[in-house]
Amino acid sequence: MADISPIEVVRYEDGRCLGERDDVLASEEPLEIRVEGHSIAIVMRTPGSDRELAAGFLLSEGIVKSAREIFDITTCVAPGDSGNAVDVGLANPRAFDPEKFTRHVFTSSSCGICGKTSIAAVLKRRRPLKNPLAVPASVLFALPQRLLRAQSNFRRTGGLHACALFTSDGDMLSLCEDVGRHNALDKLIGREFLEKRTPLSSRIVLLSGRSSFEMLQKAYTGGIAIIAAIGAPSSLAVEFARESGQTLVGFLRGKTMNVYTGAHRILAKQK
Amino acid sequence: MADISPIEVVRYEDGRCLGERDDVLASEEPLEIRVEGHSIAIVMRTPGSDRELAAGFLLSEGIVKSAREIFDITTCVAPGDSGNAVDVGLANPRAFDPEKFTRHVFTSSSCGICGKTSIAAVLKRRRPLKNPLAVPASVLFALPQRLLRAQSNFRRTGGLHACALFTSDGDMLSLCEDVGRHNALDKLIGREFLEKRTPLSSRIVLLSGRSSFEMLQKAYTGGIAIIAAIGAPSSLAVEFARESGQTLVGFLRGKTMNVYTGAHRILAKQK
Repeated sequence: MADISPIEVVRYEDGRCLGERDDVLASEEPLEIRVEGHSIAIVMRTPGSDRELAAGFLLSEGIVKSAREIFDITTCVAPGDSGNAVDVGLANPRAFDPEKFTRHVFTSSSCGICGKTSIAAVLKRRRPLKNPLAVPASVLFALPQRLLRAQSNFRRTGGLHACALFTSDGDMLSLCEDVGRHNALDKLIGREFLEKRTPLSSRIVLLSGRSSFEMLQKAYTGGIAIIAAIGAPSSLAVEFARESGQTLVGFLRGKTMNVYTGAHRILAKQK
Repeated sequence: MADISPIEVVRYEDGRCLGERDDVLASEEPLEIRVEGHSIAIVMRTPGSDRELAAGFLLSEGIVKSAREIFDITTCVAPGDSGNAVDVGLANPRAFDPEKFTRHVFTSSSCGICGKTSIAAVLKRRRPLKNPLAVPASVLFALPQRLLRAQSNFRRTGGLHACALFTSDGDMLSLCEDVGRHNALDKLIGREFLEKRTPLSSRIVLLSGRSSFEMLQKAYTGGIAIIAAIGAPSSLAVEFARESGQTLVGFLRGKTMNVYTGAHRILAKQK
């Protein structure tokens, strides 16, 4: 486990496909935090400094107030384990009430939680997307400007994440802004869901920031096959998109972009 | 409740304090999502499109798969209520097992959840910070360059949030990077906590992105009185800092910055 992961991307420039390039991504993997054997949280994090992450999490959640309350923090090392779990032992285990501090994000059955199990947990509910949607590269290059023009609040506060839904011709259908990027995407997809317009098989979603596992998961449950982001993807976002059959675009800026998965949905001249 | 909030900031330029300016912030408030009366999540969001947010959240968490499974979504409207709760009624309530889907982030006792109760829930555990730390504005202006020089992975992936801990003279003590900004701050503070160096009363923390309620809360539990961010704060970050006695700096770029709270800790010439 490292904090960056190598990857091959397909690079596009001004309607032409320039072929594959080597690149690196920020690593993203789940970490299960346990206290006295009770799973209290699963966070998506970049591997490294996991003991420190667990300690800081317990402090900020009010589970401990002093380092003396922590007896030890061990990485779960069962055979075949991913290293994606830490168990915190407390100096006074009896004072801990697990019922008060439990966050279930994904269901975790064993010590072997890893990116693959997180992806499998989502994909067991639904099948990979196989829709035949395809769009010219030029349609994607036009999206960021349309988002920016519509995004009036961002320009005023500098503090909002945005996501927008487009037709395959690049027409904007809706835009949501929120301090939380997950919320912005939940609002966008939730609106279509309530109007019984999901799955959004013929739509493109544009994210103002970065793409992560959870952002891909949300788009997937909405049936969106093309996810374009102005920022970078994480390693687990790319792995998820590969398994889910989604097309993932990153660094969509000006007349260039990287395509991480599903390049068959993007129409461009070969170089 | 609106999606932006007016505020007065104290503006600094090149070591001089230019006085107060009117500005606007992205609004941040908690939303409690209930299903059949059971609280399943509290998310920090920008008010607006709350029904859509709840619907999208339930879809992506796998709690519902079709809009037909939702009977109605109502905003909790008890007297004195903040409007920060939605209750989802299901077409088939018996099929729902609340035990499988519960995220506790803050303890919520009543329908009246709002930013004030979120802040009170944190502050009841600890007192506001009153340490006499004060730093020249020039020390703060030097921090972003030092972060950038040390932030090698970000330059390679474009996908990592960073935070760094500095002395009051502006010397960098440690740096953490993560795909999640909360994780980066948990790692940073967790390391000091495990080394029994908290509370970090004489330290400054620099955030590469925006500041939110949760980021302020984490810094506060670590005892950090000065939080400087390159990005914008949310409304609730500013409210939190005001109650907690923290100094909150935003838009720290080049030789200018906005100070939202605790300007007494920043030494500068008056204009």
